[in-house]
Amino acid sequence: MLTTNKPYAVGIDIGGTNTVFGIVDARGSVVASNSIKTQKYLDVNEYIDELCKGLQSLIDEVGGVDKIKGIGIGAPNGNYYTGNIEFAPNLPWKGVIPLAELVTKKIGIPVNLTNDANAAAIGEMTYGAARGMKDFIMITLGTGVGSGIVINGQLVYGHDGFAGELGHVIVRKQNGRTCGCGRTGCLEAYASATGVARTAREFLEIRKDASLLRQIPANEITSKDVYEAAVAGDKLAQEIFEFTGSILGEAFADFVAFSAPEAIILFGGLSRAGDLIMNPIVNSMERSLLNIWKGKIKVLFSELKESDAAVLGASALGWEAK
Amino acid sequence: MLTTNKPYAVGIDIGGTNTVFGIVDARGSVVASNSIKTQKYLDVNEYIDELCKGLQSLIDEVGGVDKIKGIGIGAPNGNYYTGNIEFAPNLPWKGVIPLAELVTKKIGIPVNLTNDANAAAIGEMTYGAARGMKDFIMITLGTGVGSGIVINGQLVYGHDGFAGELGHVIVRKQNGRTCGCGRTGCLEAYASATGVARTAREFLEIRKDASLLRQIPANEITSKDVYEAAVAGDKLAQEIFEFTGSILGEAFADFVAFSAPEAIILFGGLSRAGDLIMNPIVNSMERSLLNIWKGKIKVLFSELKESDAAVLGASALGWEAK
Repeated sequence: MLTTNKPYAVGIDIGGTNTVFGIVDARGSVVASNSIKTQKYLDVNEYIDELCKGLQSLIDEVGGVDKIKGIGIGAPNGNYYTGNIEFAPNLPWKGVIPLAELVTKKIGIPVNLTNDANAAAIGEMTYGAARGMKDFIMITLGTGVGSGIVINGQLVYGHDGFAGELGHVIVRKQNGRTCGCGRTGCLEAYASATGVARTAREFLEIRKDASLLRQIPANEITSKDVYEAAVAGDKLAQEIFEFTGSILGEAFADFVAFSAPEAIILFGGLSRAGDLIMNPIVNSMERSLLNIWKGKIKVLFSELKESDAAVLGASALGWEAK
Repeated sequence: MLTTNKPYAVGIDIGGTNTVFGIVDARGSVVASNSIKTQKYLDVNEYIDELCKGLQSLIDEVGGVDKIKGIGIGAPNGNYYTGNIEFAPNLPWKGVIPLAELVTKKIGIPVNLTNDANAAAIGEMTYGAARGMKDFIMITLGTGVGSGIVINGQLVYGHDGFAGELGHVIVRKQNGRTCGCGRTGCLEAYASATGVARTAREFLEIRKDASLLRQIPANEITSKDVYEAAVAGDKLAQEIFEFTGSILGEAFADFVAFSAPEAIILFGGLSRAGDLIMNPIVNSMERSLLNIWKGKIKVLFSELKESDAAVLGASALGWEAK
C-alpha cells in the first residue's frame, strides 16, 4: 500500500510572526510539530536553512524522507500555480521568493504552496466547521487579514493564483489608514490584530474617558490587552471591538453579494475574542445585507485549533504534491 | 437526431425596461425575436399572458412547441435553483415570483431561469469576448448594475442561487445615494444609466459652469443625453463619465481582490460610451489595484450585440432545461 510506504505528509504554515510546521498522518493527526519565528530572519536563505533544519529533525523522528509523501505550505501571498511568495507585505522578504523550489532543493521532497488562508480553508473543509459545505469564506484575523474562498467545493485561485485577498478590499475610501501593501483604507488596516491596536491608540488619543488601557504605554498596546480590558468590563475596550466588528460586518455584506456563501468562518488570534467580536460583526452584517440574505448567512468560528487548521490544511496539499 | 427533432431553444431576457425573447438554433443564430415593455405590466399575470402570447407566435413560426428543446430565462434576481424572481428592485412585481413555473404552465415546455447578468456571461463565454476564459466577471451597466461571475469555467450561483449581486456592493459608506434595494451607497446608484443621470443633476445643481446639458430640464436628462454632450466636447458631461468610471474602477479593484479574474467585461447601455467610460475605469482600477495585479487585468467591452448576448446566454440554459 502506498500509504504504508509513505504514511505522512508535511504541513507548513508561514505566518507574519511564526512559522509552524508538522508531520501529519493520513487520518489528519499531527504526530509531530515545531515552530520558528518568521520575523527573525531578514534573509530568506537563513530562514530556509533554519526551517529545513527543524523540519529535517521532525522527519528523522518518523523514519526519514522516504516516509513523507509531500510537503504543503501555506504562506501569505503564496501562489499555487508558481510556488512563489510574491510581494507579501507582512513578511520580511520583499519581491518574488521561489519558496516551494527552495524547500524542495533542501529536503528533496515535492512541495505544493498556497495562500495561508487557503490552506486554513482546506483544513476547515476537511476537519472543521466547514465540513460538508460547498460554498464558504474563511477569514483569518491575525497579524494581517487573509481569506480562503471556496465555491462549488473548490478553492478559488483565480486566473493567476492570487485570488482571495479580502484583507485588501478598501473599507475606507477617504482618510483611510495606511496599509502594509502601500495603499490606504484596506480592511486589514482595521481588522487585523495590529489594526485593533491602532484603533486603541486612536480612541485613547481622541477620547477623554477613563480606560484600563491608559495604564499601558500607547505604543505597547496589543489586541490581547484590548481583549483583556474588554473582558474586565472596560467600556472603551469594548467599543474598540464594536468598531472592529462593525467594519468587518460591512465588508462581509459585500463578500456575500459576490459569492453568496453558506457561511463565513473566522479564524486566527482575534477570533479568540468570542462574542466580543462576533456580536458586532453579525449585527453590522445583518444591517448591511441585501434583503434576500438577511438572517440567512452563518458567521462561525473555526472548529480547529489555530495552529492545527493551517498545518492540516497545508498538509492536505502535501498529499497531492508531485 | 435529437437536434433534428427539437432544433431550437428559446432565450428570454427580462430587463427593467424591456423583455426581449428569441428562438435560437443550435449554432447560436437568433432565427426570430420580439420584445415587450416590462414596465407596462404592474400585474405579473398580465405580463406572463403578453409574453407567452408573443412567444407562442414566434414558436408557431418555426413549427410549434415540438420543435423547442427548452426555454432559458435571464431575469434580475432570478434564482437558478428555484426558478423564482425574488425581491427584484428594478422590476414592477414585488416579493417572490415563480416565473419559471408560470411560463412552463402557459407554454408547456421546460424552463431554466437565472440572473440576467449570468445569462449574459454564458452568452459571452460561448460566443463573445470571454471565449476560452475560465475566470472572468461580466458587469452589466443598464437600468441597474448586474454581474455574472465565472470561476474555474463555472457560473457562480452561491449556496442559494443569488451570488453575483455586484451592483449592490457599497461604494459610499457615508452620505451614499439611496438605491432601489432600500439601502444607500450601492454601486448601482452611481454606475447604472439612471445613476449617470442622477450624477448629471447633482453636478448641474452644485456647479456653475456652462454645459449643453443645461438646455434640458434637469429631471428629463438621460445617460444618453450625457453621452451626446460629452461627445460634442462638453466638459461637464465628460467629467460625469470620469466620476462614474472612477467609482467603477475602485469597485473593480475590490472584485479583483476577490476572484483575480483574467478580465472584467462590460455590457449594456452605458458601455456604448466607449473610451469615455473605459478610460476612467481603467485609470481608476489601476490606481486602486494591489501591486500584484497592476497592469494585468483586462477590461473589455462585450463582443456581442446587446440584445443577442442575453438572449443567446438564456437560450444556452434552455438547451439544458428538463
